[in-house]
Amino acid sequence: MSSEPKPWAGRFTEATDAFVEAFTASIDFDKRLAPYDIQGSIAHAAMLKRIGVLSEEECEIITQGLEHIRGEIERGEFSWSVKLEDVHMNIEARLTERIGEAGKKLHTGRSRNDQVATDVRLYLRHEIDQIVREILRLQAALLDLAEREADTIMPGFTHLQVAQPVTFGHHLLAWYEMLSRDYERLLDCRKRVNIMPLGAAALAGTTFPLDRFYTAELLGFDRPAANSLDAVSDRDFAVEFIACASLIMMHLSRFSEELILWTSAQFGFIDLPDAFCTGSSIMPQKKNPDVPELVRGKSGRVFGHLMSLLTLMKSQPLAYNKDNQEDKEPLFDTVDTLRNCLRAFADMMPHVQPNRDSMYKSAQKGYATATDLADYLVRKGVPFRDAHEIVGKAVRLGIETGRDLSRLSLTELQQLSATIGPDVFEILTLEGSVRARNHFGGTAPNQVRAAVKQARRRLEEVVIT
Amino acid sequence: MSSEPKPWAGRFTEATDAFVEAFTASIDFDKRLAPYDIQGSIAHAAMLKRIGVLSEEECEIITQGLEHIRGEIERGEFSWSVKLEDVHMNIEARLTERIGEAGKKLHTGRSRNDQVATDVRLYLRHEIDQIVREILRLQAALLDLAEREADTIMPGFTHLQVAQPVTFGHHLLAWYEMLSRDYERLLDCRKRVNIMPLGAAALAGTTFPLDRFYTAELLGFDRPAANSLDAVSDRDFAVEFIACASLIMMHLSRFSEELILWTSAQFGFIDLPDAFCTGSSIMPQKKNPDVPELVRGKSGRVFGHLMSLLTLMKSQPLAYNKDNQEDKEPLFDTVDTLRNCLRAFADMMPHVQPNRDSMYKSAQKGYATATDLADYLVRKGVPFRDAHEIVGKAVRLGIETGRDLSRLSLTELQQLSATIGPDVFEILTLEGSVRARNHFGGTAPNQVRAAVKQARRRLEEVVIT
Amino acid sequence: MSSEPKPWAGRFTEATDAFVEAFTASIDFDKRLAPYDIQGSIAHAAMLKRIGVLSEEECEIITQGLEHIRGEIERGEFSWSVKLEDVHMNIEARLTERIGEAGKKLHTGRSRNDQVATDVRLYLRHEIDQIVREILRLQAALLDLAEREADTIMPGFTHLQVAQPVTFGHHLLAWYEMLSRDYERLLDCRKRVNIMPLGAAALAGTTFPLDRFYTAELLGFDRPAANSLDAVSDRDFAVEFIACASLIMMHLSRFSEELILWTSAQFGFIDLPDAFCTGSSIMPQKKNPDVPELVRGKSGRVFGHLMSLLTLMKSQPLAYNKDNQEDKEPLFDTVDTLRNCLRAFADMMPHVQPNRDSMYKSAQKGYATATDLADYLVRKGVPFRDAHEIVGKAVRLGIETGRDLSRLSLTELQQLSATIGPDVFEILTLEGSVRARNHFGGTAPNQVRAAVKQARRRLEEVVIT
Amino acid sequence: MSSEPKPWAGRFTEATDAFVEAFTASIDFDKRLAPYDIQGSIAHAAMLKRIGVLSEEECEIITQGLEHIRGEIERGEFSWSVKLEDVHMNIEARLTERIGEAGKKLHTGRSRNDQVATDVRLYLRHEIDQIVREILRLQAALLDLAEREADTIMPGFTHLQVAQPVTFGHHLLAWYEMLSRDYERLLDCRKRVNIMPLGAAALAGTTFPLDRFYTAELLGFDRPAANSLDAVSDRDFAVEFIACASLIMMHLSRFSEELILWTSAQFGFIDLPDAFCTGSSIMPQKKNPDVPELVRGKSGRVFGHLMSLLTLMKSQPLAYNKDNQEDKEPLFDTVDTLRNCLRAFADMMPHVQPNRDSMYKSAQKGYATATDLADYLVRKGVPFRDAHEIVGKAVRLGIETGRDLSRLSLTELQQLSATIGPDVFEILTLEGSVRARNHFGGTAPNQVRAAVKQARRRLEEVVIT
Repeated sequence: MSSEPKPWAGRFTEATDAFVEAFTASIDFDKRLAPYDIQGSIAHAAMLKRIGVLSEEECEIITQGLEHIRGEIERGEFSWSVKLEDVHMNIEARLTERIGEAGKKLHTGRSRNDQVATDVRLYLRHEIDQIVREILRLQAALLDLAEREADTIMPGFTHLQVAQPVTFGHHLLAWYEMLSRDYERLLDCRKRVNIMPLGAAALAGTTFPLDRFYTAELLGFDRPAANSLDAVSDRDFAVEFIACASLIMMHLSRFSEELILWTSAQFGFIDLPDAFCTGSSIMPQKKNPDVPELVRGKSGRVFGHLMSLLTLMKSQPLAYNKDNQEDKEPLFDTVDTLRNCLRAFADMMPHVQPNRDSMYKSAQKGYATATDLADYLVRKGVPFRDAHEIVGKAVRLGIETGRDLSRLSLTELQQLSATIGPDVFEILTLEGSVRARNHFGGTAPNQVRAAVKQARRRLEEVVIT
Repeated sequence: MSSEPKPWAGRFTEATDAFVEAFTASIDFDKRLAPYDIQGSIAHAAMLKRIGVLSEEECEIITQGLEHIRGEIERGEFSWSVKLEDVHMNIEARLTERIGEAGKKLHTGRSRNDQVATDVRLYLRHEIDQIVREILRLQAALLDLAEREADTIMPGFTHLQVAQPVTFGHHLLAWYEMLSRDYERLLDCRKRVNIMPLGAAALAGTTFPLDRFYTAELLGFDRPAANSLDAVSDRDFAVEFIACASLIMMHLSRFSEELILWTSAQFGFIDLPDAFCTGSSIMPQKKNPDVPELVRGKSGRVFGHLMSLLTLMKSQPLAYNKDNQEDKEPLFDTVDTLRNCLRAFADMMPHVQPNRDSMYKSAQKGYATATDLADYLVRKGVPFRDAHEIVGKAVRLGIETGRDLSRLSLTELQQLSATIGPDVFEILTLEGSVRARNHFGGTAPNQVRAAVKQARRRLEEVVIT
Repeated sequence: MSSEPKPWAGRFTEATDAFVEAFTASIDFDKRLAPYDIQGSIAHAAMLKRIGVLSEEECEIITQGLEHIRGEIERGEFSWSVKLEDVHMNIEARLTERIGEAGKKLHTGRSRNDQVATDVRLYLRHEIDQIVREILRLQAALLDLAEREADTIMPGFTHLQVAQPVTFGHHLLAWYEMLSRDYERLLDCRKRVNIMPLGAAALAGTTFPLDRFYTAELLGFDRPAANSLDAVSDRDFAVEFIACASLIMMHLSRFSEELILWTSAQFGFIDLPDAFCTGSSIMPQKKNPDVPELVRGKSGRVFGHLMSLLTLMKSQPLAYNKDNQEDKEPLFDTVDTLRNCLRAFADMMPHVQPNRDSMYKSAQKGYATATDLADYLVRKGVPFRDAHEIVGKAVRLGIETGRDLSRLSLTELQQLSATIGPDVFEILTLEGSVRARNHFGGTAPNQVRAAVKQARRRLEEVVIT
Repeated sequence: MSSEPKPWAGRFTEATDAFVEAFTASIDFDKRLAPYDIQGSIAHAAMLKRIGVLSEEECEIITQGLEHIRGEIERGEFSWSVKLEDVHMNIEARLTERIGEAGKKLHTGRSRNDQVATDVRLYLRHEIDQIVREILRLQAALLDLAEREADTIMPGFTHLQVAQPVTFGHHLLAWYEMLSRDYERLLDCRKRVNIMPLGAAALAGTTFPLDRFYTAELLGFDRPAANSLDAVSDRDFAVEFIACASLIMMHLSRFSEELILWTSAQFGFIDLPDAFCTGSSIMPQKKNPDVPELVRGKSGRVFGHLMSLLTLMKSQPLAYNKDNQEDKEPLFDTVDTLRNCLRAFADMMPHVQPNRDSMYKSAQKGYATATDLADYLVRKGVPFRDAHEIVGKAVRLGIETGRDLSRLSLTELQQLSATIGPDVFEILTLEGSVRARNHFGGTAPNQVRAAVKQARRRLEEVVIT
């Protein structure tokens, strides 16, 4: 290559072969799958024994060998080799090294294509169960807080403008609801994760009379995948999981945004526990809400992984292509990010301290009970449009004289509409306003308490796998 | 603004007010929601009657007025106004224009925030049902084709390299499986779509004793949303739907990629019906697979909408913010794109013509039965690693002498391993190879037929709503 | 297709052929390219005349015919046909209809592949110039405001916690800087837009001796594209433009976030002009910052288009594929969204009203001058770590006694450090603090004024094309 | 928290404090910035000396201390601490440990906010220069190959259907062109990377009379950032870089797609060097194009990072927020991925072996010279539409009799059009066809050679920094 410009010649410390070896190897990240690889291999061996491909003894030796390797890995004694490319080859090579001949038979009737797909599903099933636990733990913390703050009044916002008073407990239950959908969505996703690719072999099935239903049963899968070409090339379950994770992270970023706003000096609605904040090396007055900020930032990370996986799979022909090796890192990082963010929130939430006074004062600004006055007039028989006009005048009077609606006199109000009676003052207070929204889903304290009660009952019924 | 540079002064044909009005209005796209807005309003009126807010007569007049407006819209006689911002205000204004006083009462106990959320859910529920129909129609077409081609042999690919022979029917069933997951995922999503926000009002519920369970029943919703703040700000259902749509489009882009490859002169596996292709104005020999290419391209569009909505919702504080108006166009375009792409495939699939001969010849290249020979040796008791080595030698011999494995002589084969008998030739043929993969999920023709049968049974059980 | 389930049979109002025709046609959206298509065709005809393929007369007739069609389109008299697929065929068909034989010669030496790529580049070049104008207009408005508010003090935030006082003018100049990068980035992008594909024909060039440099000159392109295969399949310029647009929208979403925060009752830093806000039909106290909210929401839309186009192009083999038809809608919508959002901000900014008093009071909270005290001590020779400790004690004293640092007595301060003299009070005021940050890029009022002056000079030098 | 469900209680091995510490720390990934942190600190110290804040001796001690630490890090002797959060604190703590008092003065007039922004820019500038080198190396390899294959004929595709013959050299130059744009785009991006945030301090500048132009000069920056608020919160340069990287990865995924197609048995156009492929453990016939597949897959990864960063920045208020810590991992991974993929291609390209015979035979199929016949007729004075009709008939005759156009007899051709003479056969051959496309940008061999020559000249002029 005589024309190769000089300046960049001879700069590689690594020869091409070693570089390509490292570039194409996956062992750096897929060793995380080791326990699931071993679990899958033990079940595969048991099935091979059942159909007569392995003897009882061979199966026993293989199983013991694999359990030994599991121990080596757990104790950090296992030596991983890039030359052996991936977790499967590393473990198989070590097995054969330890137990000889029998190890060579383990790969009968399977290929790395169905093996890796099985490992990832076992891994993800396990992680979903952990994530679900964190969701439930966070929900329980929210219920405790919502119950405690069922009567606490704060401004409800639309467009970040004070709209109507709500109870803090009610606001917290909005978060609870989001998490309930997240929980359901994960369980729906889990159904589609819990299908077994094993037995699809390279792509077409094998010539051995595999009993795939038996292996599936041993591994706790709902059923074997119904089509071998699909089984080795399907990564839907990973995409679907990351889509679920994206929604959860979107929710956590919304919580975070509110926590950050609320801890600002301008809002001052809550205090976050010190352990979840940091100070500044130079500005001693500062207490930064680091954890919510970081969680908010991490939402982008998970959205990116979702886009990464969709792009990865786009227009791939069947069946397995090497591209698919790229599914693991986004998946693993999504799992870690999601678990950590949920844990941080579940740990933090019990220690959030509301400043009830600040919240109340904020709600008093902005004529938040204007809608209540309009509703009052409608109930007295005033047509809606007239009611609305009357309220407009009342608000204007309040603004001009620097008073809230509840501090206008009955005489003043009656000049605006003769239908107004002394009972109006009850509905013009913040307490009256929230108490009046007393239907299913409304912000009234007793609705909040009922919602907490029902949610607790639901949480108690959840069976943790 | 003395410093404003001249060149761009006075270039607007539109004054700021009119521009801002158009910029913030949604009527151009949300008028699509009109039938659902009317449906929701009729149910709301019926509920208001039930709780005594409307008289029987008022309810009747409102209902008739709305039905009349529905007719105007359907006949294209309705005149939409940007000044009235959105579909809700346009319809309400027209209603009051027609029926007077009673029309002004319809908005009692609701706000546009819960109204629009309800409309979008009614719309999406309807569209999901249409999309599910298209999926089932495409699946039925695939089953027909798979049954017809249960014995047709083609090369199975990994890494786009010939790997093992498979049946064309089996390959088509891989697509069927993907669509089955898509179907299930949409039904799971539909559960979360089918929750009613109405009654949440602006954000906190209302002071009227709404019977939200009754309205939900009238509208076919499973239940009212449990928290009013969440109800008006939740767009999870739209994100989840677009995530489901993204997976479907990803699948269709994979089908498309294969159809495009298969119609190339180099593969020549299938012919697409003329109606789904275009020619060239200058190159008369050309028949371009336009429909699959376009569908493949449209996958990006839906992925983009998913990203758009996730970004939209990221870190929004509760409750409703104007940002949310931006949820509609991505959702509507996703629905249209998905329905059209599925329809195009469902229309096209029955007319796909396989070139069985080309497929077969392609499968004959590339020593596709090498794995079968290895399995044969293992069954004869040869340890796996030795078997693999023997097969390697056989392939090398084939390459050197320009013959496929099935055309090596028994003597030649026996020189490589004495355990080989004359029964080997049965397994070295393409037919023998596919026939041998005869377990659940394998490519054997009778497995394909059994899978078709079971899938047909499933499709027959589907209840179309 | 006997197995096709009944429920969805016979539901199409549209036959497959008509459906596919509409599905694959682009005329609905690409007619926007008409003026550029005509411009390109006129230049192509002139070049064909120059190389002797068209006679002078033919060229003249073609040019007049195209100009006539341009008029028809501008007056809305042109009748577009889906049967003719796209804007190119519609115009060519109309041309031949009007001028006969000569019209048929126009397509010599080109194909729709290079034609459409040329049209889109002409379109985008024009739109970039308009967008650049809006950026400059917004920048000019920011400079005016920054100059007016060069002395206005507000809290500077990190982590949304009060950190140090800054001037409002300085804050506005941060926005100015972002837009300056956007401006440069668009001009860099424009260089790569302004390359001419015409002459690449279908993919390989043509057998006519085209003078591509002449056509490029006529159309104002910098040069013809250097490789025909690349020329017809390259969509980099569209991706790069949408990436630039994404950055601008990200900036506008940041401005928007701040405007929304600042108009909240809790911050109360500014008032937005009424024309850019909306009220509520029921809550007369409300003034919602609709325009910033909508702009913030629209950022997701543009990010989605970016993802859409990257996905579209991913792994397409050369040269033109039908997928590429999908490039137009995301591009057009990005252009419209970006222009409108920039216009809205440029119109709004001159009318933003700062509440200087609120800003000042907010800056007084939170010991915002703590860093100044530390710097003071360092200048007096106190080692940094000791200085930091002393300031910590001063802040603690302030918190305990409810006073800001500037209201501690000299005696109190001297008890913390004997080096403190009466000159300390000058630096403890907000005014002293901002005045002291008096280096290039700092927040001092005279730095702000200098920055405005320099920026104005730059804007004056800009040549608007 | 009495209501906390039991099942998930007490499962943390890590206490909350340690967990939060690890969750918010960045040292695991930002230690990569160490050399740039040291470089920046040394320049900062020199500037502090120049303005009299540090003595000559202090500056000397600091510089030596930092150089010592650089050595410790390079030798792997440095012990990183999560407690110290990030790379800056780790290095500063070690410095003070080593040199005492003077170390404490280094942080005068800066904060971690401007420090990290400076480090990342120094890092990225360095990496862009390395990436540019890989691009140039890959371009040089493409030019060599293009020159060697300037006469090699292959089918040119549109819609993956054979369209017209092209030269392989011409096709390779299309890739070269894409990389030229990538190169330019990176250099444009580099201009915006090469701006210095240092001196912005926390957000507002400092009270020390920093000479930021001097520091910028020492560090090779073009200039200091003009606004301190912008300087600490700007991450545009990272987004822009990842957008550039996404385009490059999109190009590499297109190359990859073609390499994968071309190595398939069905195309058979090229052989890839063994070192860039892998075999199969069971199918000895297989040679999988692993490197292109992996590169194609990795495009999604980089697109995902782009989305991640845009989402991260969306709607963040000024100035620094903790969210920004999340910018590093996507950026670092993008840099690594891009460098590795470019290196793999630059290493691989010189060893790509075209199968000229297969390419030629493929081009002979599909009446690829039909356009040439039409052009021939036009040149003979036949109106375009008539010419097109005549060619259509000729192709039909060819199809019916199983012959290519060049193998029809003159008599047969003249029956279709009397204007056809014996010179037609020259243009109907593949060689004649490519030779005739002999204008700037066309596929003719001498155009390819001219393009290579010009490109070489350009590469020679490139100054490698």
